[in-house]
Amino acid sequence: MIQKSILDALQKIVGPQHLLTQKEDMLTYSYDAAVLDPVMPAAAVIPEKTDQIGEIIAVCRKYRIPLTVRGSGTNLSGGTIPEASGIVVLTGRLNKIIEINAADMYAVVEPGVVTATLAAEVEKQGLFYPPDPGSMAVSTLGGNVAENAGGLRGLKYGVTKDYVMGLQFFDARGHHVKTGSRTVKCATGYNLTGLMVGSEGTLGVLEQITLKLIPAPRARQAMVAVYDTIEAASETVAGIISSRILPATLEILDNFTIRAVEDFSKAGLPKDAAALLLIEVDGHPAVVAEEAEQVKALCLKMGARTIEQAKDDAQRDKIWAARRAALSALAQLKPTLVLEDATVPRSRIPDMVRALQRIGQKYRIDIGTFGHAGDGNLHPTILTDRRNKEEFLRVEQAIEEIFDVALSMGGTLSGEHGTGIAKAPFLEKEAGYSSILFSRQLRAALDPDHILNPGKITGV
Amino acid sequence: MIQKSILDALQKIVGPQHLLTQKEDMLTYSYDAAVLDPVMPAAAVIPEKTDQIGEIIAVCRKYRIPLTVRGSGTNLSGGTIPEASGIVVLTGRLNKIIEINAADMYAVVEPGVVTATLAAEVEKQGLFYPPDPGSMAVSTLGGNVAENAGGLRGLKYGVTKDYVMGLQFFDARGHHVKTGSRTVKCATGYNLTGLMVGSEGTLGVLEQITLKLIPAPRARQAMVAVYDTIEAASETVAGIISSRILPATLEILDNFTIRAVEDFSKAGLPKDAAALLLIEVDGHPAVVAEEAEQVKALCLKMGARTIEQAKDDAQRDKIWAARRAALSALAQLKPTLVLEDATVPRSRIPDMVRALQRIGQKYRIDIGTFGHAGDGNLHPTILTDRRNKEEFLRVEQAIEEIFDVALSMGGTLSGEHGTGIAKAPFLEKEAGYSSILFSRQLRAALDPDHILNPGKITGV
Repeated sequence: MIQKSILDALQKIVGPQHLLTQKEDMLTYSYDAAVLDPVMPAAAVIPEKTDQIGEIIAVCRKYRIPLTVRGSGTNLSGGTIPEASGIVVLTGRLNKIIEINAADMYAVVEPGVVTATLAAEVEKQGLFYPPDPGSMAVSTLGGNVAENAGGLRGLKYGVTKDYVMGLQFFDARGHHVKTGSRTVKCATGYNLTGLMVGSEGTLGVLEQITLKLIPAPRARQAMVAVYDTIEAASETVAGIISSRILPATLEILDNFTIRAVEDFSKAGLPKDAAALLLIEVDGHPAVVAEEAEQVKALCLKMGARTIEQAKDDAQRDKIWAARRAALSALAQLKPTLVLEDATVPRSRIPDMVRALQRIGQKYRIDIGTFGHAGDGNLHPTILTDRRNKEEFLRVEQAIEEIFDVALSMGGTLSGEHGTGIAKAPFLEKEAGYSSILFSRQLRAALDPDHILNPGKITGV
Repeated sequence: MIQKSILDALQKIVGPQHLLTQKEDMLTYSYDAAVLDPVMPAAAVIPEKTDQIGEIIAVCRKYRIPLTVRGSGTNLSGGTIPEASGIVVLTGRLNKIIEINAADMYAVVEPGVVTATLAAEVEKQGLFYPPDPGSMAVSTLGGNVAENAGGLRGLKYGVTKDYVMGLQFFDARGHHVKTGSRTVKCATGYNLTGLMVGSEGTLGVLEQITLKLIPAPRARQAMVAVYDTIEAASETVAGIISSRILPATLEILDNFTIRAVEDFSKAGLPKDAAALLLIEVDGHPAVVAEEAEQVKALCLKMGARTIEQAKDDAQRDKIWAARRAALSALAQLKPTLVLEDATVPRSRIPDMVRALQRIGQKYRIDIGTFGHAGDGNLHPTILTDRRNKEEFLRVEQAIEEIFDVALSMGGTLSGEHGTGIAKAPFLEKEAGYSSILFSRQLRAALDPDHILNPGKITGV
């Protein structure tokens, strides 16, 4: 329970209608997209102006109240699961696009702006904001920055961190900190912008984000290659990369995922295929045409049964809608879906695919595999029922083995979902204890009262 | 003076021939390329193995000895100027290229590898390491990372921070910290890689750097456009960017710089031109041809007297050699050369050029202007004699006015040279006191004994 004096102080900042304490509301903010126990917060506040963030932090600091910021709660590592004694700060009303500067190719936004909204707005001006996490239709840019969100275009265009030019945020002391610039180059002061990206709300609360934009590609060509074995599909991925073609998107779907997606979305995918590659090249029309032909030839040479090019935008959109439906489609099949994102150097994708098959058999669990094959970032997806304790134990063992295999290939625990609560216990395996100690020292200095999203990343 | 017991301890680590204390040696390491008072260190050590770094830090920590790491000393903000009581750690023998992985397109290097050496090695494998600071022929990759070095290709390809995938370093406690990955996506733990890039040796000593490589562009075309007014040249820069062409390089030279370069290097530059634009487009041959024509038409339309395309690699190399000679050429003219790098949003380049002319007249000083116009990063270069105190006061006033003008245009104090000692006093102007406080708290936690390159960035 939270003291009435604290609620009064918060209510004074945001107004009575924007302070929530009802059980139904708290339930809504008790979980995110990670498979973890829900935790009901004590209250939720919905600031309208970014200045109110500083005031909210001051209250939290005075009363030692943990504070978790939540955008749309699409987080896959538990980064938005609050503390039981804490409050949730909702960014839904901090949703202004402050500026789109076409001449200097940047945008300035508040943290609650939805990713797809910004993408659509900049597209109207012939510009392009590439990071496109699977949840971009609802995810917020603040959440994307906090988690360093990736997406389908990471291979060619990078991830969120590659587009954050500057930030304004309130630190744990309630001070207003400015970092980075609206210039394409900035070497002034520490790269606090870089530090804040992916810090999961543990070092400050975002107020304003300056994002780099680039010219929109003039042409693009989407393709679907159909395979009779997943090995051939994964070898093709390595083959495309080694031929020095950098597609904007290079996704894989295994048979399990294909069937789930097709049943769910009736997109016309071949349910008998062992694997599909969904590929898009973009850029100058001449290059797109040439690379599309090269990719086609390579896929056929490396064992694709067929490869079809999208004939128009409608067909293209259908392909990507099917891909984006994968998570929802798989989630229909069993009560619990665990989506992993252990990532390996790209050339190891065939090895990783084989390892996932072996691990699935070993632990007698269903693993659907899809994801960003082109950047080594597969999403092995385990369908289970968390209430079945015996099975879920096997799932947890399988996950740990997936981590171990990825690390043994020179990979990482998380390509894009972040550490959060879910991967905090495994961080030492990858980074070593000294890195955690370094991180904890940094964090303790910047949040001495330990109020900003406790428990995430460093475990304490 | 430094105690003999300390020297003995250091000598035990690196061997007697790699511990320097002679006055002539100390003189060599007392300055860098910034116009600042030299400071003679107490000793210099030259480790051969990265493990020795941890041992050196342990000695420094025990005796509270300030430690400054030095690559080639090409730093332009005083980042490598040591403390009088401190030691300098030279990275010259830590110069192994540990791995070039062509399949996964990354390289792993020790900090003392020369930038141009790596660039040449990866080129042999059809790969490309784009960051090319002006001093790349001698600068080290460790120094580039510590300063987040830029270069001539920043416009299209970004700067050093965009290529650092992972780091291993020793922190101020002598612990070995690992961050980042060899995967193209990594969201595991804090983005310590981002924090370390540009931290100027104040948070740790680099041991190993993993750098992203990209496929080499298949074609490139360099051009020289000649202008009768610098205004027309700077307007063309803004025009090229707004036409959504992203040249690999887009450099400006004013008449002052042209004459200095021509006298110095006899490259055949037109000494009567008010300004030159040196432009290179690269990529797919069809795109290069098309963009070269578009750039040519645009330059002529916007007032270029002539524009010539390099006919072959030799001509191209001559153009860039002339550009890279600018700093050396200007340095011949007067005893003291102050090279600034205040940076503005690209569309403000014409305004910045006008402001620099006004400031030069106001303070009656010679300002040669050249630099990376395409990314808003001009290098106003002031020729003076530091011994002339009256004139140097005017120079300092002019520099401060350049900073103020850049900030008023939404710019930054440093595009690529870093904060170091030179810009530390001005940091508050741009970032505000809270950002400095935040940075100092972070730094104090990570370097409690205050031994890592004191005085840089945050001023203490």
